[in-house]
Formats: sequence, structure tokens, C-alpha cells
Amino acid sequence: MNEELLLFTMLDMAGTFAFAISGAIAARQKNLDLFGIIAIAFMVACGGGIIRDVCIGAIPPAGLTDWRYLTLALVAAALAMVAYPLLQRLDHPVQMFDAVGLSFFAVFGAHKALALGYNAQVAILMGIVSAVGGGVLRDVLLNRTPLILRKEIYASAALVAAVVQVGGVRLGLSMDWVPWVGIGLCFGLRFLAMRHGWNLPRFAPHRKP
Amino acid sequence: MNEELLLFTMLDMAGTFAFAISGAIAARQKNLDLFGIIAIAFMVACGGGIIRDVCIGAIPPAGLTDWRYLTLALVAAALAMVAYPLLQRLDHPVQMFDAVGLSFFAVFGAHKALALGYNAQVAILMGIVSAVGGGVLRDVLLNRTPLILRKEIYASAALVAAVVQVGGVRLGLSMDWVPWVGIGLCFGLRFLAMRHGWNLPRFAPHRKP
Amino acid sequence: MNEELLLFTMLDMAGTFAFAISGAIAARQKNLDLFGIIAIAFMVACGGGIIRDVCIGAIPPAGLTDWRYLTLALVAAALAMVAYPLLQRLDHPVQMFDAVGLSFFAVFGAHKALALGYNAQVAILMGIVSAVGGGVLRDVLLNRTPLILRKEIYASAALVAAVVQVGGVRLGLSMDWVPWVGIGLCFGLRFLAMRHGWNLPRFAPHRKP
Repeated sequence: MNEELLLFTMLDMAGTFAFAISGAIAARQKNLDLFGIIAIAFMVACGGGIIRDVCIGAIPPAGLTDWRYLTLALVAAALAMVAYPLLQRLDHPVQMFDAVGLSFFAVFGAHKALALGYNAQVAILMGIVSAVGGGVLRDVLLNRTPLILRKEIYASAALVAAVVQVGGVRLGLSMDWVPWVGIGLCFGLRFLAMRHGWNLPRFAPHRKP
Repeated sequence: MNEELLLFTMLDMAGTFAFAISGAIAARQKNLDLFGIIAIAFMVACGGGIIRDVCIGAIPPAGLTDWRYLTLALVAAALAMVAYPLLQRLDHPVQMFDAVGLSFFAVFGAHKALALGYNAQVAILMGIVSAVGGGVLRDVLLNRTPLILRKEIYASAALVAAVVQVGGVRLGLSMDWVPWVGIGLCFGLRFLAMRHGWNLPRFAPHRKP
Repeated sequence: MNEELLLFTMLDMAGTFAFAISGAIAARQKNLDLFGIIAIAFMVACGGGIIRDVCIGAIPPAGLTDWRYLTLALVAAALAMVAYPLLQRLDHPVQMFDAVGLSFFAVFGAHKALALGYNAQVAILMGIVSAVGGGVLRDVLLNRTPLILRKEIYASAALVAAVVQVGGVRLGLSMDWVPWVGIGLCFGLRFLAMRHGWNLPRFAPHRKP
């Protein structure tokens, strides 16, 4: 149990940091000021988790009380300010870090809802919200239609991770590897979707003849 | 009391379904993908209720735990994908379904807040939030100024429904017909406002001479 | 203790009224209708406080239960409709009222979180959210990138006020003057930033050579 907790704390920190970097880069690209970069980094990192915690009654949200989240957001913002060329040398830094955070948060969000005794549907929805909420907040604040609603497989990858985690817990499988399967599937799916431009089907609006 | 509960459950389902269809149609018109259509359908359907439940401490929000809401959103999204021409044959399908959901949710939201012991002001505000919240979320996510803030009588119709419901409960009138009066008034007002282009007054910005 | 409560109630009312006026003016400038002006006035006035209260579990949010907030929003909306030229004679009425609300809410939000037993980090974050949340909601609803993310020193002024309040409480200083120091510093900083166009540093996006 202690090891499980440690594992999930590490996933949470890694996901938070990845999202914070993705947020800080997006904010910098939009030419926001110092505070704007920190604020967006913090919101992408903690926004999904805060929405999740408010919905499942985990008050106050861990994103607000825990100094480590805020610190991670500050470090990520500082990195994006100071070491931006370094981050940029990765080919698509925003998207890659985003995919890491997506995978970690989907699993962790589902886990937390289950741990508080909610049913499988809530756990899966909360996995998606944790994974996607920060990015949606970022896009709403930066005043653009959220990418996840029209881009390559994104939230659907989070759905897969959350379903794997919830299914694994329900089937009593070992938490040593179940989360990693969910994370691996989600990240792999997202990565391949970006690489090959995979999209979910769209439905062109019909017009009356 | 049981009948009252049944009545309100039915109102809730009908309103949810109507909103989900309105959301799915709007998402399809914006050319979102499969997941985007489902997500917007679910958010329009449950978003107002979720905001209401978070505000009045009804945790977890019914929109998240109850499989029927999610199912209704999925069915509505499927209908909008598969039977779109059918939905489109109605003249202004988005607006009409929107008016149905608006009326149902205003009454139900006010009812729920009163049932939890909140005062009349909270009940009326929660009626408006339930009715209007999903649509505002939709417009924010689709990146446009919410229609309700500048269109024909919309949220004011929800206000009427909520006031009728709260007034009826306070006066001890029969719940056999009070909700239907609120719903009928709200729907009628909204319908006439759309038909005749009724607007609330605006106030053009003055300029210094 | 009673006097402290009275002081903070007065600050809260003054801040609410100032924010409501700033919201109503912005809504009128965007040519919204009667309901839109009232809604934006109410949301700017109470939105930050509602987000704060939802995050710290102060359910239902005071902004929803207390008739005085709603009344202040209605009065502010009415003033913006009827006495708009009067409000406009002030040079930059929106910004000036905004700065007053910013200062009041930063101190009050931090105070409330501390009073509920939260730690210093939550109190400071809640001070910022209270001060900035309503304005961010306004900008999101009016479909523009929130000013606070790219404008002259704004949220950073709220940060100063919240830090002063939290520090004052922690050091056991007299509440007779600590809040006023925070408010004065925040307002003065914001005022000077507007007057002289002070900005936080930005970091231009690097391009690969």
C-alpha cells in the first residue's frame, strides 16, 4: 500500500511537471508576461486536478495545499523562461510533454476517484477530467477552441488509460504494472496519433439539397 | 412525495436529452471530431447541473455518478452523427431543443436547491445556473461570446421559471401543476422571443461629445 | 473580533460594488443586453469569491446566499445603465474600480482562507483567486484573453496584498492596520503601473537560427 502510494505520488509529480512545462511554453509563445507564464503553467499543471477534487469533494484540492505542485510550476515556468532554446530543441516540445502529462493524469485521476469510493463511471470521467482539464483551461484562457475537441486522438487516449486503470483495480490485478500499461497505451496511442496524424472520424455538416 | 420525485426525475431526463442534442448539433456544425461531439453533448447536458451541484455541495454531482445522463449524452451524440438530416428537418433544431432544456432545468435546479434547504435567492440563482450553465460552457469551449448575454430573451425566461417554482413551493401550491406552469411560461416566452425577435433593451455606449 | 468582522464585511461590500461596476461597464461597452449587463456585473463581483469558496469548501458560497451581493450587483448594473456618462467622466473608470476591487478582494480572500484554518500557501493563492477570478471570468465570457496575463502589474499586486495580510496574521500584528497596508500597497502598485505603463518582463519566443 505504501509502495502504491509512493508510485502514484511519483506519477503525480511527473505529470504535474510535464503539464507545467507544456503550459509555460504555450504561454511564452503567446507572449504573456512573467506572471502570465507562471499562472498558465500552474493552471495547466493543477487545473485538471483541482476540477477533479472539487467534483469528488476532496477539499481543499491537493493542487492548492501542496507546496510541491506550486514549486514544480515555478520551476517549469523558470525553465521555459531561461532554458527555452533547450526545451525547443526537442522537436515538438509542447505536444510531447503534453502526452506525458495526459497519460500520468488519466491513470492518477481514475485512481483517486476509486480510492475515495466512487463508482467506475465517475472514476473514468475523473481520469479524463484530470488529464484534459488543465489543457482545456489553458486553451480557454488563451482564447482558442480547445485542441482536444478536434485534434488527433487525445482525450480518447486518456479514456483508454482510465479504463485500463479502473478495469485493473476491479479485476484485482497488481498495481505494480497495471498503471504502467495504462500509461504506456495512452502515451503510445497519443504519440502514434501525432506522428501519423490519426484522427477520430468527423461528420461533415449536411446541407439540405 | 414519490410521485413528485418521479415527475422531477422525468423532467431532468427530458431536459438532459434535449440539451445533449443541442450540444451535439452545435459541435457537429463546428466540425468537431467524434470525441468532441460527445464531450460537448455531455457538457451542455450536465455542465449546468454539475456547476449547480458543486455550488450547493451536492457532491458528487449527479451528472457524474448517474449512468443515465452519460447514456443520454451518448445517444444524443449518436443521433446527431447518424440521424442529423432528420434532426435538421426541424426548422431551428438547436434553438428549439435548447428552449426545452432551458425550461426543464430552470425548474429542476430551483427545486433541488430548495429541497436541500437553501433560501429562495440561492434557489432562483441555481435555477438560472442549471438552465444556462451548460450553454455557457458550450459557447466558451466553442470560443464565442455566450449567446445568452446578447440574444433574445433567454436567461430571463429561465428566471421566470425559477421564480414560479420557488414562489409555488413557498405558497404551498400543488406540485402537480406548478412546475408545468413554470416550464410552460419559460418555453412560451423563449419561443415567442425567437419567433418575433424579442430582445431585452440594450444601452448603447455613450461617447463624450 | 467583532470589529475585525465588521471591517472585513465593509471591505467585502466595497470590493464587490467596485467589481460589479467594472463588470457592468465592460458589459455595456460590449453592447450586451439588460440581462447580460447584470450577469457580468454579478459574475465579476462574486465570481472570484465563488471560486474561492468552492475551493475551500465554504459551501454555499457567500456570493450566492447573501442578498447584499446580488443587490450591489443590481445597483451597479443600474448605475452603468442610467448614470453611464457620470461613471465615464472618471478618466479610466473600468481600470480604477477594478484596482479598488483587486486590493480589497486579495486581502479578504487571504483572510477567509486563513480563518478557515488553511495554510499560508492556500491563503495567498485564494487571495489572488478572489481578486482576479471575477475579472478572468469576465474576460473569458466576453471572449478575450484575460488582461491579467499580459497587462501591467495586476495579479502581482494582488499577490503583494495577500502576502502582506498572511504575513501580518502570522506575525500577530494588529488587524487595525495590516489589511490597510496590504490594500494600500496593492492599489498604489496597480495605480502606478497603469499610470506609468509598468510591465512585468516578457520573454520573446526564441527562433532557431
